[in-house]
Amino acid sequence: MNRRNFIRNAAVTVPMMAFLPGFELLANPVKGKVKITDVQCVLTRIGMRISPLVKISTDAGLIGIGECHHDSNGLGAKDIVLNVCKPIIMGKDPLDLDYHVFKMSTRTSYFGGNHGVATHAITGVEMALWDLIGKITEQPVHKILGGGSHVSEVRAYASARPRNMLDMDSCKEFAALMLGQGWTACKSDIDRDQRWNNLDNRRLSNTEVDKIAQGFINMREALGPEFDIAVHCHWEFDFDSALRVANAVAPMRPIWLEDPLPIGYNEQWVKLTEKSPVPILCGENLYTRDDFRPFIVNQGVNMIEIDVSMAGGLLEAKKIADLAETYYIPVCTHNVASPIATIASANFAATVREFVAHETFINNQMNRAGKGVNGDPDVLGYDKEMIVKGHLQLSDRPGFGIELNEKLIKEKYLVQGETWWK
Amino acid sequence: MNRRNFIRNAAVTVPMMAFLPGFELLANPVKGKVKITDVQCVLTRIGMRISPLVKISTDAGLIGIGECHHDSNGLGAKDIVLNVCKPIIMGKDPLDLDYHVFKMSTRTSYFGGNHGVATHAITGVEMALWDLIGKITEQPVHKILGGGSHVSEVRAYASARPRNMLDMDSCKEFAALMLGQGWTACKSDIDRDQRWNNLDNRRLSNTEVDKIAQGFINMREALGPEFDIAVHCHWEFDFDSALRVANAVAPMRPIWLEDPLPIGYNEQWVKLTEKSPVPILCGENLYTRDDFRPFIVNQGVNMIEIDVSMAGGLLEAKKIADLAETYYIPVCTHNVASPIATIASANFAATVREFVAHETFINNQMNRAGKGVNGDPDVLGYDKEMIVKGHLQLSDRPGFGIELNEKLIKEKYLVQGETWWK
Repeated sequence: MNRRNFIRNAAVTVPMMAFLPGFELLANPVKGKVKITDVQCVLTRIGMRISPLVKISTDAGLIGIGECHHDSNGLGAKDIVLNVCKPIIMGKDPLDLDYHVFKMSTRTSYFGGNHGVATHAITGVEMALWDLIGKITEQPVHKILGGGSHVSEVRAYASARPRNMLDMDSCKEFAALMLGQGWTACKSDIDRDQRWNNLDNRRLSNTEVDKIAQGFINMREALGPEFDIAVHCHWEFDFDSALRVANAVAPMRPIWLEDPLPIGYNEQWVKLTEKSPVPILCGENLYTRDDFRPFIVNQGVNMIEIDVSMAGGLLEAKKIADLAETYYIPVCTHNVASPIATIASANFAATVREFVAHETFINNQMNRAGKGVNGDPDVLGYDKEMIVKGHLQLSDRPGFGIELNEKLIKEKYLVQGETWWK
Repeated sequence: MNRRNFIRNAAVTVPMMAFLPGFELLANPVKGKVKITDVQCVLTRIGMRISPLVKISTDAGLIGIGECHHDSNGLGAKDIVLNVCKPIIMGKDPLDLDYHVFKMSTRTSYFGGNHGVATHAITGVEMALWDLIGKITEQPVHKILGGGSHVSEVRAYASARPRNMLDMDSCKEFAALMLGQGWTACKSDIDRDQRWNNLDNRRLSNTEVDKIAQGFINMREALGPEFDIAVHCHWEFDFDSALRVANAVAPMRPIWLEDPLPIGYNEQWVKLTEKSPVPILCGENLYTRDDFRPFIVNQGVNMIEIDVSMAGGLLEAKKIADLAETYYIPVCTHNVASPIATIASANFAATVREFVAHETFINNQMNRAGKGVNGDPDVLGYDKEMIVKGHLQLSDRPGFGIELNEKLIKEKYLVQGETWWK
């Protein structure tokens, strides 16, 4: 039953409505009438990592689709979606989203102080609720989240790098790809012997700093002065190493230096932001306003980057962005999710006043030769190209505009042992 | 093969050792020789909630036992123990614990910014490593963690309350139980219509405040002036409601007021701690020094409470306690774990200079009529009573002194569908 039919049926079964003025007929039968009847979660590999997908069903026949942030194999997120979140929202009105998130957060605060896998689970549910709210109100999410938006696309940046940053031919090849596809910004990992996820210590030698800088100077030369280049660290360094990197890459004029210090807030961030000749950014490991607040109010960053799937959902991300705006701090997104959460995140990004750029990954064999980012775009059942000239495209359809290609996911991307949802 | 045999064998296969002075013979063959050969995780219900148990095996035949903090059904913690932590420590020397924790934390920082289920998994592994280190060095953990300890028991408090705090007979009955069993401290939930895990708003009415205060005043009357009574909130209130509770319970002279404000640090904590006539405490939802630091250095609490299973393990808890000590802030523990992690946590508590009291739960039918706390004490295979006159007893045996009663756990407490470890 689609929404129109549901409204018609509701009107038939509630003849009282016939006495109300005509303009109320459209909205009132639905208000408070749509009830959540099921919450399902299934583990898939449609993106770069594990994607636990959430489906919320209602008695109106409308469904909402969301995605939880990855972890090891997604078992924890699925456990919490089904056994903690589901009982809280069953039978409830999807429109009361903020209340449901408060309830789920309070209930799970014991599993991580509103961080980590529990918050990923809540976010997947929250995302699906927004998709539903869009369908109930017959509006795209980017039109109803915190004041809407006039834009039809969101500027993206490509998380990618030349094969060898120290080799000019490599850099030129990369520039040809970027400019050829119409990108206006990219973010590239620094060169270092120690990989960020296998770190031994927080010190950088001078030789390492010089090598990092040379790589980015080569990229600038190949990409030209207008192209935005972000320098990508992974919360590795001590203050002194971080400041040396900032000074070394400054001549290249990066759009930002990302995550140069370890994750937690402390006064070193303020000192680095004061001393650095280039903008300092962080946020990809931060959850909710509680984590972002000290960075923003103490001027511990110049820009923030919100991962909607980690930070607590679209509404929490919007609240964080609004807090940042009161300090004139521009907002970017971090995003390693599949095309589904990427489109959801782009709907949030569209509503942010000073939005800079949205993360996308182009080096994925599932991207279908540049037609998608972060995974197979065909899973979306989208009415637009996902990405055009380095900009994520927004749909005018209700919700996120996604009509999930269940057949494709079931056949190609379902995790072994998982049963597809009803 | 026990440790002595292993040393003998190692000495035989490394005849070079024979030339070293005799006093080195004991230690050197073992140093760097014990290698981790397996990491297993099994879900059990030996405590009040889910207990994912960790077993680390070595080529010396020694094993270490740990326990992860509960979440929904423990599936996420088990996933991360087996698929993230295990590959990092396989083949490694258990003595290099700090390095292993750094590696595991860096690797999983993506799953929660070092919070939540990922940190619970690391903690279970860290706990098992301490058990192993104790066995390798033939010392109880409370003798080798950060300077050791001269104590043989740790003061505990009973998390419990009268059936009805507003009824004096109820309070007298409770006092008879407490004093009869030799307890010197308890912590009791406040009376409120809204349960902490099903909260609608952060306001307390004056009537509610008066009711809360009356309950605790009754308890004081029944328990006498010396008994320590802690007032237990669950991160529910706004500043004004919290301060009204603090003022209302002040005449009863509580040992602390716990978690009156929401979880995250901000300046409201400093203001409340300044204005409150009773000591303010928090910590049960905080992870690692990063979370505790602002509370401690900004004087946002009078006392802290560390949950070893959440905060990041025994060593991280010790580092937090050491930071607190530099501000003369006393330390308690929070603890909802099974008897296994309770004993591990007590080994940490024994090493803290200004330790106040360790949380224990007495209202559990598995406690075997007061012989245990937090679950069935018989799972421990302990050489002492677990609890005597409100004090947790420490073993002099190596590690935590636990010789797990595998038969009992397998038969009574294994989660359905789980296979017991090798």
